[in-house]
Order: sequence, then C-alpha cells, then structure tokens
Amino acid sequence: MLQLERIEENLFRGWCHQTGWQRAFGGQVAAQALTAAGATVPEERGVHSLHGYFIRGGRTDRPIVFEVERTRDGGSFTTRRVVAIQDGETIFSLSASFQRAEESSEHQARMPEVTAPEDGDIELFEPLPIRQSAIEARYIGDPTKGLPDVGRGPRQQLWVRAKDRLPDEPLAHVCALTYISDIRLAGTAGLPHQAEPGEPQLASLDHAVWFHRPFRADEWLLFDMESPSYASHRGLAHGEFFTVDGRLVASVTQEVLIRRR
Amino acid sequence: MLQLERIEENLFRGWCHQTGWQRAFGGQVAAQALTAAGATVPEERGVHSLHGYFIRGGRTDRPIVFEVERTRDGGSFTTRRVVAIQDGETIFSLSASFQRAEESSEHQARMPEVTAPEDGDIELFEPLPIRQSAIEARYIGDPTKGLPDVGRGPRQQLWVRAKDRLPDEPLAHVCALTYISDIRLAGTAGLPHQAEPGEPQLASLDHAVWFHRPFRADEWLLFDMESPSYASHRGLAHGEFFTVDGRLVASVTQEVLIRRR
Repeated sequence: MLQLERIEENLFRGWCHQTGWQRAFGGQVAAQALTAAGATVPEERGVHSLHGYFIRGGRTDRPIVFEVERTRDGGSFTTRRVVAIQDGETIFSLSASFQRAEESSEHQARMPEVTAPEDGDIELFEPLPIRQSAIEARYIGDPTKGLPDVGRGPRQQLWVRAKDRLPDEPLAHVCALTYISDIRLAGTAGLPHQAEPGEPQLASLDHAVWFHRPFRADEWLLFDMESPSYASHRGLAHGEFFTVDGRLVASVTQEVLIRRR
Repeated sequence: MLQLERIEENLFRGWCHQTGWQRAFGGQVAAQALTAAGATVPEERGVHSLHGYFIRGGRTDRPIVFEVERTRDGGSFTTRRVVAIQDGETIFSLSASFQRAEESSEHQARMPEVTAPEDGDIELFEPLPIRQSAIEARYIGDPTKGLPDVGRGPRQQLWVRAKDRLPDEPLAHVCALTYISDIRLAGTAGLPHQAEPGEPQLASLDHAVWFHRPFRADEWLLFDMESPSYASHRGLAHGEFFTVDGRLVASVTQEVLIRRR
C-alpha cells in the first residue's frame, strides 16, 4: 500500500486503495508522499517530522503522482517537499525533515495507565475494509462515546499496529505510522457533536507528525488522543503513540473540518 | 516590525531587527511570511493554520524576500505557500490556510487556574532588546525553573501581549501572535537540561500555529506551554493561548534542536 513506482529520480507514482468513501484515505496519501521523500534521502538520516496540507480530495480510481523537491541537503538536516498531483492539480503537499539519530539526554510525558492490548475485554476495531486489511486496533472504552473529558476536551485511546509484518527499514515503520495516525484523530474532535442533526462529514485539513524515538509499527502502540478545540466547524486533535513499555515514540496533530449534510 | 514592502503582486521584502543574536528571530520571519500570505487573500477569509520549516539561519543585516505561491483559491478555503529567501537561498518556508469564520457548536480545553496578569507578584519578563520592545510578558512561577512536571514533561506559563496597540484588522493580531508564539517555547523543552555542561544553543526546527477563535494580541493572553518529549537533541513543545476570560484562541507546536557549544 505504500509502494510507489519510481518514474524519474524525483518523480513517483502511486495508487490509493478503494475505501468505500468517495475520497482517497488521507493517511495513505500522506504515507505515500513520505515514502517518496524518504526515497531521495540517505538511509542513515531518519525522518523526524512532517507537515502536510490536504488541498483537494483525492480519487481512488486513478494514480497520484508525487513530485519531490530537494529543498536542502544540509550538514545535519535534510529537507524535502512533496507535491501530490492528480488530474493536473495539487491534492496534497508535504514538507518533511530528516536527521541522523544522535545520543542526547531525554525526557518524555508519562504513558497513561491503560489496559494491556492483549486483554480480551478490549473491543476489536471494525473499520472500513481498506483499513481493516492494514491495521489492527483495540479500543479502550466505548468507541462511540470516547473517554470522559478531564478538562482537555474529548478523548480517545486505542491500541494499534500494522496487521502484517513490515520490513526492518525504519522508513517502512514511520510511513506505516503516518498511515495509522490518520485514523480516529478527526473522529475524536467530532465525538461531542455526534448527536447533532445530519450525517457528519469529516475532512482532514492538515496533518503533522513528529517522530521522537525508534519503534516498530507492527508491534502494539497506544494511540492516546484528545481534542482541545472545536469552533467554526474546525476541530484540533493531538495524538501520542507509546510503546507497550511506555516509550513516547511519536506525536501527531491534525485539524479537521466537520460539516453536516 | 511586520510591515513589508510589496515589490510585485506576490513578492514582498522585509527586514529582521537586530536581536543581539547572530540570527534573525524565527517568530519575526514566520510572522512576516504570514503577513505576505495574508496580503494575497481576501480580508473576509482569516488564517486558521500555518506550518513552517526553518531551513537556514536568517541574517539581520540584509533584507528577506518573501515569494507567495497562490496554491489554491477554493470555495471554502484558500491555501498559500511562502518561501523566504536571503542571499539566493531559502531560509524558511511556510504554508497557511484561510477560511471565512462560520458559526458552529464548540468545545475547548479548560484554562488552567492561574494568577491574574495584573497581579504584582508576577515577574516582568526581561527578554532580548528586540522582543522587549515588542512584547510584554509576566511569568507565573520561576522563569529559570518552570513549573513542576505533572507527568507531561517540563511546563511554563506566562501572560503575554503586544506592548503597542495594534490596528483592528484580525490579520495584524494573528501575525503578532505568530511572532509571540516563538518566545520561550523552545526554552520550555530545554528547561530540564539547563544544568548540563556547555552553553545551550537553541534552534527552532519548525513552527505550526492553529487559530481557533478571534482575539486581540494587544490584550493579555495566557501562554501555557509543555514539552512532552526530548530525545536525539530534539525537543517537542506545545503551547496554548487563552484570553483572560478563558477562551482558547490558538495552539502552537514547535520542534527545537538543542546542542551545547
């Protein structure tokens, strides 16, 4: 799902799988754009952040072309920009930065105390067909209600992992996590507004991910989400990914548009 | 400080003030880039988000040219990209999205309970000359130590406002807040690492701001910051801005590089 055809040095082509929706799944577009960027960067430099804007809805019935701009190859950091094009128009733009891992002192937020992923009481996630085939997820609490608001807005927690074993290259894991990081985040912002009339239509507006520490996306990660704001039909949601042993490996922030039919 | 000379329809030129540092202040570069983007967007569409990468250090002894790309003028949203150029090289790139304000239901995180900005016990911020002239800030707690970690990493809170009265146009206030949002955020990530040997050098790597609700940047705003991660010399910090009456008006996230001489 993240594999691309390399057309030229800085030009790639990919397909988005049918989602059952009208539009391509944003997480897949973002993950493919990151795959394209990463293919132009030496392997020893890992991606530590990406920022993307969803500019137009992507279609699943035709390919997406990814054009990579080699913004900078610096002494410590490499910067790339990727434009995703369909029918001659930009549907998504991404900037990403890469750095060789360095030893330093550390600090991190504490992992919330939660039920282990293998606990039988946790509900299996039943998402859309495309995601079901790629992601395994287990909810903590009722997925239709989320967790109680403790003053930070609506919350949601789930254990997630890629269903299939991934290759060992770190890029495969960051791209898989980029894909995973687009599930339920928008939905977290929409949780308190589900009772409003009309079917909600959620559209991701942007997407930013910071990768803090090495991880495997095919092992369980706690996806801890909260939405501190919703106004003018726009919700903001933050998410954090923790390994089973409590290491904070990535953070994600997304703004989402929620409208009613 | 945010005024630009318009050279052509999509081309602007600005100066960064001397900071006492070798480099231009990132908040000013970002705010000027947003000013350039905003000058190409109809006034009724307000900026709701920006994402920027600091690619090279900017110099204060020569102008910065801002090139605006009109990425999309859509039915609901306007997207702009701005590249800041000095000596023929990109020093900063920004993407920003604009939307007309719409009525909707709302939710938001609760403002922390803090001392009021006019309380005499709060220390006046004594920053570098350039910032001192532009921003008034009052710390809550000891600025050298920050606030106690409650499981989310190092924290800091300060009341901030633009020192001078700003024009009434909303763009002036979002640009001023973009400027303000670059102070102390990097420093929050560095708080637990101050005792380490060598003088710390902080460099902002990226900068993202989401504007949730209308506000004035020349009235007191609580800037509530935390840094959930630091590893591989990179720290992540989130900040939220609340009005005196508790409205969450903006969120900011930044990744920062901290090295020692």
